[in-house]
Amino acid sequence: MATRRYAFGRADEATHPDSMRATLAEFVSTFIFVFAGEGSGLALVKIYQDSAFSAGELLAVALAHGFALFAAVSASMHVSGGHVNPAVTFGALIGGRISVLRAVYYWIAQILGAIVAALVLRLVTNNMRPSGFHVGQGVGVGHMLILEIVMTFGLMYTVYGTAIDPKRGAVSNIAPLAIGLIVGANILVGGPFDGACMNPALAFGPSLVGWRWHQHWIFWVGPLIGAALAALVYEYVVIPTEPPHQHQPLAPEDY
Amino acid sequence: MATRRYAFGRADEATHPDSMRATLAEFVSTFIFVFAGEGSGLALVKIYQDSAFSAGELLAVALAHGFALFAAVSASMHVSGGHVNPAVTFGALIGGRISVLRAVYYWIAQILGAIVAALVLRLVTNNMRPSGFHVGQGVGVGHMLILEIVMTFGLMYTVYGTAIDPKRGAVSNIAPLAIGLIVGANILVGGPFDGACMNPALAFGPSLVGWRWHQHWIFWVGPLIGAALAALVYEYVVIPTEPPHQHQPLAPEDY
Amino acid sequence: MATRRYAFGRADEATHPDSMRATLAEFVSTFIFVFAGEGSGLALVKIYQDSAFSAGELLAVALAHGFALFAAVSASMHVSGGHVNPAVTFGALIGGRISVLRAVYYWIAQILGAIVAALVLRLVTNNMRPSGFHVGQGVGVGHMLILEIVMTFGLMYTVYGTAIDPKRGAVSNIAPLAIGLIVGANILVGGPFDGACMNPALAFGPSLVGWRWHQHWIFWVGPLIGAALAALVYEYVVIPTEPPHQHQPLAPEDY
Amino acid sequence: MATRRYAFGRADEATHPDSMRATLAEFVSTFIFVFAGEGSGLALVKIYQDSAFSAGELLAVALAHGFALFAAVSASMHVSGGHVNPAVTFGALIGGRISVLRAVYYWIAQILGAIVAALVLRLVTNNMRPSGFHVGQGVGVGHMLILEIVMTFGLMYTVYGTAIDPKRGAVSNIAPLAIGLIVGANILVGGPFDGACMNPALAFGPSLVGWRWHQHWIFWVGPLIGAALAALVYEYVVIPTEPPHQHQPLAPEDY
Repeated sequence: MATRRYAFGRADEATHPDSMRATLAEFVSTFIFVFAGEGSGLALVKIYQDSAFSAGELLAVALAHGFALFAAVSASMHVSGGHVNPAVTFGALIGGRISVLRAVYYWIAQILGAIVAALVLRLVTNNMRPSGFHVGQGVGVGHMLILEIVMTFGLMYTVYGTAIDPKRGAVSNIAPLAIGLIVGANILVGGPFDGACMNPALAFGPSLVGWRWHQHWIFWVGPLIGAALAALVYEYVVIPTEPPHQHQPLAPEDY
Repeated sequence: MATRRYAFGRADEATHPDSMRATLAEFVSTFIFVFAGEGSGLALVKIYQDSAFSAGELLAVALAHGFALFAAVSASMHVSGGHVNPAVTFGALIGGRISVLRAVYYWIAQILGAIVAALVLRLVTNNMRPSGFHVGQGVGVGHMLILEIVMTFGLMYTVYGTAIDPKRGAVSNIAPLAIGLIVGANILVGGPFDGACMNPALAFGPSLVGWRWHQHWIFWVGPLIGAALAALVYEYVVIPTEPPHQHQPLAPEDY
Repeated sequence: MATRRYAFGRADEATHPDSMRATLAEFVSTFIFVFAGEGSGLALVKIYQDSAFSAGELLAVALAHGFALFAAVSASMHVSGGHVNPAVTFGALIGGRISVLRAVYYWIAQILGAIVAALVLRLVTNNMRPSGFHVGQGVGVGHMLILEIVMTFGLMYTVYGTAIDPKRGAVSNIAPLAIGLIVGANILVGGPFDGACMNPALAFGPSLVGWRWHQHWIFWVGPLIGAALAALVYEYVVIPTEPPHQHQPLAPEDY
Repeated sequence: MATRRYAFGRADEATHPDSMRATLAEFVSTFIFVFAGEGSGLALVKIYQDSAFSAGELLAVALAHGFALFAAVSASMHVSGGHVNPAVTFGALIGGRISVLRAVYYWIAQILGAIVAALVLRLVTNNMRPSGFHVGQGVGVGHMLILEIVMTFGLMYTVYGTAIDPKRGAVSNIAPLAIGLIVGANILVGGPFDGACMNPALAFGPSLVGWRWHQHWIFWVGPLIGAALAALVYEYVVIPTEPPHQHQPLAPEDY
């Protein structure tokens, strides 16, 4: 189900149909995710026009991100590994789980998916300007960088433990849900501070379409560092040795 | 688990017991879904009589739709494929996954299920008039049509990736949940604009019983286009070749 | 996983250890469910003392019931079938899935579990009087009886489709979640009207400990009728023929 | 998937790489859980500064705990058994499912993970003082001790029924979700009274970093007693005899 190390060294990868399909799957799934995530924020801004950000609105935004990411990862897990996030792709690259070429393909697809989602949102909302992410009032840049690192570490660690680790067993059945809901949980923590991005594409698409770039680098640097740290910890410390492939059919308790 | 292409060309399909059971399952599941979805809106209108639509109410409506659709799809997945939505049936037809005859059966069952649900709601609420869907204030018709297309595209793409694609693997275990929760997420986006229908039966039943037809066509045309687009993309681009049936028992990692 | 027809005709059932364990599992699981469900209502009453019942409070009560029922059904599914509800046990009895003797055991265990949960809640809340269920203001008794029938029909149909039907396939993996969340969804509909019970034990325990009996019969008659109707529809119309037991290992796609 | 009795008596356990990896997994998963759980409370305090604790805020805190615990348990289930809680480890020890040595390792890892999470939260929130748990106004200490015992009993019973019982079958696929959501449900009950801890590490880390120790013992004694009671009931009454290991491949219906 997950991307496997030995599956990504083929010489014909650049033009192989599987690579193209996986890239398309990343594009569509990132579109679905960013549309719902960014769109839920626009919906609240448009309709309620509250000055204050209430717990109910925070919940709506967190659940929209979590539920949509769950569906987006589910729909692409078996095609592309269900990254839907340039930071997750970076972590998989650092951990040696995908090739550089495929990572570049995924990044382009994810960023394009996010841009198209932001454009469609601007269209259907009659030209509302996407808000993207920014650092909240009275919050330090350094603090927010650490916050993004920590939250994305938790996301990538969950991705590794449920969707990549060859020994993960029965949890592979609910990997997309765990991935979606850790993002939802982290938004309930980081939302009031910096929006809780954990995903450079989710930041970039709306920032480009809304042309808001204030401290945008945080939402690239933080998630990439966090995902890389989680990949290194999981790949080189938690995973001892990769079980030989031919043992899988003998271990039905893994399914 | 999902409907299979070769299973729907039988000459005796019109009267075959399996077709009848599947049609009944679509009727009951659509009843369960529309009862909870439309009913949650009536409950809020009846009791709170808020002038404003709060984030908490949006959440209640989104979760009622998402959770009930999850249960309704779960209960009918193995009997009928768990469509519970004329647009999803249309997408499966466009993708060649069901026959025209079965699609017609499903459509009739889904629409009847939605009508009966709306009638029962009118009865138990002491004659409250179902609200159905309508385009929000200050929102353009063209924008809402695109919104319905985009949201239903995301729904149908999720259905294909988790419940139809023969290579979907472990995500088949959580397909009904992904289908339910992408609807919940999209309601958190589109709810304040046009109600976020994505399902012609969900629009038609309450519209008929409440006799509200203002721009009703959007909630047919939009979902049908969106589902057809997703089916075409997934069936003809993402799915490369259908794996031969006899290979399935040799691929335990799919379960 | 589910109770099987041929497994419940043993002559020694009355004293067989498996029956005793299943009965204990029903007792504990019903305790866990009623504690969280009734307790969430008491928590809101105690702390917030709102005169109005807000959408946020409705959500809190619905999710407490749904999540706790999910966990309670999960923990007892393989031991007792995960009924946690006298109406579900009645439906399983009507459908011929359990014996009369076992149903009586389950009913006693479920009612005792609910009573103990209500007593513990009264203790830890410093003698707060459990509220139980009652028909809301301006709501007719006949309407509420139909509402309970309809909501419990949806619950029992979900139980049958995901946890009892031998052909249910992959959805058996998420049966407890579907069962929990259809209850959550129905509470979002029926909560403002009559509390949305669907479970005689959930009504009886708090009613006894709080000594509130106003129209209590509705929460027995409605759920029992609704569950029986769903069992009859599913058992005798949706399920065609029960597949022979020895065929199961040949159908890996069911797992 | 779950820890097995016979797997923990090895003489070289103290230095065996598997023990070290499991301990690391408990450290990281407890960090992820406590970061989101405690952090969600801080986020609400920081941004909204509400004097009253609303139903929406209770929901946000409950879902942050539930979703993050689900992800944290998922990511460590196959490595360490997914305890993420000293009380759960204590229950597993009482039930004979892990060795004393491993329990000590887990406890140290869990407490360190919670402390580091609280420190990181203090850092990124610009020195906000973690609130930890305390007994609410007008609530008796004895009542709260019983409340913690009862809620942790429900948690540990769910852990046993879904993640430890060798006969648990298909529910093993959703065990982490059931464990996460019973905690969410119980927070919706106990949150307004004492915060609903059920986890000594969750109490200790923030208490140490925020230096708040008022009646801190309740959050150790209550969870440990509740988990031990559930382990004794489940291990010695609900589980009849452990099925021989070699029978597992013959029972495909368990998967």
